[in-house]
Amino acid sequence: MVEGETAEDHSGSSVLGVDVGGTWVRVGLVSQEGKVSESRRYIMDSHSQKSTLDSIETALAHFINFWKGPKPLALGVGLVGHTRPSAGLWVLAMNLPIQSSVPIRRLLREKTGLPVAIDNDVHAATLAELRWGMGKGLQNFVYLNIGTGLAAGMVCDGKLLRGAANYAGELGHMVVDPGGILCSCGQHGCLEPLCSGAGILAQVRSGLREYPNSSLFRAARGGTLTASQVFQAAEAGDLLAGRITGRAVQALSTALTNLVNLVNPSAIFYGGGVVGDGWLMGKVSEFVFANCLVAARHALKGIWASRFDPEQVGLVGAACLAWDYLERRRESTKMGDKN
Amino acid sequence: MVEGETAEDHSGSSVLGVDVGGTWVRVGLVSQEGKVSESRRYIMDSHSQKSTLDSIETALAHFINFWKGPKPLALGVGLVGHTRPSAGLWVLAMNLPIQSSVPIRRLLREKTGLPVAIDNDVHAATLAELRWGMGKGLQNFVYLNIGTGLAAGMVCDGKLLRGAANYAGELGHMVVDPGGILCSCGQHGCLEPLCSGAGILAQVRSGLREYPNSSLFRAARGGTLTASQVFQAAEAGDLLAGRITGRAVQALSTALTNLVNLVNPSAIFYGGGVVGDGWLMGKVSEFVFANCLVAARHALKGIWASRFDPEQVGLVGAACLAWDYLERRRESTKMGDKN
Repeated sequence: MVEGETAEDHSGSSVLGVDVGGTWVRVGLVSQEGKVSESRRYIMDSHSQKSTLDSIETALAHFINFWKGPKPLALGVGLVGHTRPSAGLWVLAMNLPIQSSVPIRRLLREKTGLPVAIDNDVHAATLAELRWGMGKGLQNFVYLNIGTGLAAGMVCDGKLLRGAANYAGELGHMVVDPGGILCSCGQHGCLEPLCSGAGILAQVRSGLREYPNSSLFRAARGGTLTASQVFQAAEAGDLLAGRITGRAVQALSTALTNLVNLVNPSAIFYGGGVVGDGWLMGKVSEFVFANCLVAARHALKGIWASRFDPEQVGLVGAACLAWDYLERRRESTKMGDKN
Repeated sequence: MVEGETAEDHSGSSVLGVDVGGTWVRVGLVSQEGKVSESRRYIMDSHSQKSTLDSIETALAHFINFWKGPKPLALGVGLVGHTRPSAGLWVLAMNLPIQSSVPIRRLLREKTGLPVAIDNDVHAATLAELRWGMGKGLQNFVYLNIGTGLAAGMVCDGKLLRGAANYAGELGHMVVDPGGILCSCGQHGCLEPLCSGAGILAQVRSGLREYPNSSLFRAARGGTLTASQVFQAAEAGDLLAGRITGRAVQALSTALTNLVNLVNPSAIFYGGGVVGDGWLMGKVSEFVFANCLVAARHALKGIWASRFDPEQVGLVGAACLAWDYLERRRESTKMGDKN
């Protein structure tokens, strides 16, 4: 690696992004224009907090060892669950076994020698949408991510809405049917178990007892079933798939209409495995435009698929955190020069 | 009236606030500290758009005629429904018959000779909570108003969340029970018909057919019934009151838990006639703290009654718009001086 580069010279340089997911750790180099030049994915061993952290460190070490180009300027890390970016802490996660607060920024700075910025993964993807994506130049939009889990990033007045503890955006736990399925959070009728990837697959598995002749049987038992296959089966008349997708469409339609009435965005962008084929959001968009309040509808210009590659959006989001950090540092250096 | 005062000299001076409600138009003088020194209320004749606007103009003319002190510095107007403050337009209202866009700022400037600032009434009350109330110094809070209608103002990162068309905050149209009552907005199961003042009274009226022996009968038919009486009747074992309040508690509990999970506030303040006796919010607060996500609960320090007098909060909010306007004008003059 080339030593002695200064952080002020960004031209032609890259940052490192790390997207920490439930199945994979993705590591890659991302330019200041948001282009991924190199990336690799590594297995996440999530059986314990220690194995989760080891998986991240091993992935990073392997990637850095393999990379022979110029040293990255900084490292950005997108994490599921609750983070405290200013303190560098990964506080808690539900979809990975993080039960006690981890000083992840310090750990990774010590391992890599790079400045490190961390944040929640959906916040990170939303910031990438704002910096490089379809949200560029917009003041008020929502980024909706539906993969294994479900969450939203809200940009209001040009800034990511973080809330009091950097925890804003938990749309997955909006209750849309108080008599509905029990969620892992303890409430009944949350959106996430009804229409996240994990929620849809769990519903198929439990529904096979009642619908043993469902066309989903083989793929579900073989562990290869995707949300997209469930949507296709529903279109083909499969009863179990029809029941599950009907509930998912209704739940997401209600939740997004609520969200539009509440935060009055001019656009919604969506990404993630469950919405990759456009089926679910096609139905939901129609409902939202037909049912939200008039003034909110007039302001909402569209509900569109994000242009980021679903496989890379997490990585690009993580890298965006690093670019944001470098920008803030440059600005505070300038301010220091002036004072 | 004293002529020739400059807008730069605010010491000891007041602005005029106008709170435009469905029943009353309140007009009053409010100091830079948020104190109401003089106020009067006038009947709102809301049978048409013209009579609504006439009521506002007549109220203002009467108050100005009656007031013999120094000329107010500016006029702030809080309006129900959709407004465009920067264009000075009252675009639409559901609880007053405003069906076509009214250039209310220009109309009232011509009538009074004062600079005029307008906004939605709940936005205005939220800004007053931020400037003078319990939200002073807080970065992330929600102001919940439940009177005849229901809406919320959200302050995020120290600023009122306005959305793309200044329409954010329509919590009253959050669907919390897709199989619920039909709302005037066209959806089923919105919060507003379940727990706003108008919604609760409408439920009593329609429920009396099924519960003719309800203790609410006399007050409901006499037109004197309040939400507080319905809560008391429920506590005393009245079946109709119990059914209505049970639904109201459940609906508001679900909606506020959803809101807390979504925007992660550090406090919720509430005001308005329906929550004035503390009964409803006592039950709802308990539910929210027991059911919201752990990180959101840790960040939420409390759910408290606003300290503003419920009779005056609309007026104080309206006046806050005028003070905000004067401050912005002073700052832009300063900027102009520098450039």
